[in-house]
Amino acid sequence: MTYCVGVLAEAGLVFASDRRTNAGVDHVATVKKMFVFERPGERMLVLLTAGNLAITQTVVSLLDEDCAQDDGDSLMSATSLFRAARIVGDALRQVHAHEADHLSQQGVAFSASLLLGGQIKGEGPRLFQIYDAGNFIEASAEMPFLQIGEAKYGEPILDRLLGTATTLPQAAKTVLLSYMPTLVSNVSVGLPIDLMTYERDSFTTGQRWTFEPRDGYFEALDAGWSEGLARAFADLPDPPLG
Amino acid sequence: MTYCVGVLAEAGLVFASDRRTNAGVDHVATVKKMFVFERPGERMLVLLTAGNLAITQTVVSLLDEDCAQDDGDSLMSATSLFRAARIVGDALRQVHAHEADHLSQQGVAFSASLLLGGQIKGEGPRLFQIYDAGNFIEASAEMPFLQIGEAKYGEPILDRLLGTATTLPQAAKTVLLSYMPTLVSNVSVGLPIDLMTYERDSFTTGQRWTFEPRDGYFEALDAGWSEGLARAFADLPDPPLG
Repeated sequence: MTYCVGVLAEAGLVFASDRRTNAGVDHVATVKKMFVFERPGERMLVLLTAGNLAITQTVVSLLDEDCAQDDGDSLMSATSLFRAARIVGDALRQVHAHEADHLSQQGVAFSASLLLGGQIKGEGPRLFQIYDAGNFIEASAEMPFLQIGEAKYGEPILDRLLGTATTLPQAAKTVLLSYMPTLVSNVSVGLPIDLMTYERDSFTTGQRWTFEPRDGYFEALDAGWSEGLARAFADLPDPPLG
Repeated sequence: MTYCVGVLAEAGLVFASDRRTNAGVDHVATVKKMFVFERPGERMLVLLTAGNLAITQTVVSLLDEDCAQDDGDSLMSATSLFRAARIVGDALRQVHAHEADHLSQQGVAFSASLLLGGQIKGEGPRLFQIYDAGNFIEASAEMPFLQIGEAKYGEPILDRLLGTATTLPQAAKTVLLSYMPTLVSNVSVGLPIDLMTYERDSFTTGQRWTFEPRDGYFEALDAGWSEGLARAFADLPDPPLG
């Protein structure tokens, strides 16, 4: 599996993806799931992928080829993020048409989900989640984050803390914290984690980090969070026994 | 859905279940999912249920009837928790034989999972999880909790904090905290929550509470935990931005 998050904040966007991939526990590898399409000053798009790796890599290759031989209908020429999301959905449908029957004959479900976020000159930052069927939903102030892959472990932290994060670094910290329960409870998600913050109206790749195993900041965050939880737990009264 | 937890602690057992049930969002109701089979001084068994309500209620009815007309092969006569778990698994298989084809014709999957814990004179407290197929696993010191239903939201809290809980009330507090993220992020799990602690070698129903909406302790726990998390979050350094 995988765990990817996108956050739509007032100040911009935050993206994160882990690099763990596995086809059964005997085939665990490291692979990048964050892809950037940008033309500085004009557009900056980030694509995050989860699901069947053969499917999502094919989608990315199709999108890349479309950008290279741009006929006015690629991520580099789309006039809005909505149009860009439709291009990604269409690419996924192309792959479905080409692959789904063959996968089905092998008993493999067609499974892929993607997050597409960024900003194109002329509109504000936007964030979309594209489903297996190529349809999609958009994030909003009321639904400021979208997740794909192993989403449930980290969702409560985003639900609880994202509202208190007012800056991009704080939103990024919340996103990283949402990885902690996922890493604790699910071996299919693992470091390294790729993180990017995009500042509204900058139209260029923002701050990027890759948190490798034994990263100093990530370890401090994990330890501090663990201590904070233990302290919060100890401070709470026991149930009214007896 | 449902979220139920059982904990096998040094001091005894903790059981919890919510009472939310839903057949689609337009049919949400309240139903008990915790069932006690006991003969004080000799045995105390608790059954928690999740999954298709028609299936789990039928399983409980069959187990109840077996106990009433006890032919030496019921939860009230089983000589070990292992035997009792097998009786529950067999009841589930009976229901499968009677129902699965009919459900399948309506496109409904046969889905039920159960936790069975307690103590029978002659052995220590034990805890089992019974799967849809009637097979089962047992909790141990290395795997001290079992969950059924919407398990993922609460699992990280149990993973992280159960090791620090040394008394039954502390284990019960951890179990209640594992409901908080589930309640925040998933509308299919809801109050009231039934909680029971069983003290090793007491062979009788332990402390029981039902936390109704607006329960004073539960609200204080929720508020205190929320504040503790916010404090822990605020104390952590932001990521090493640019």
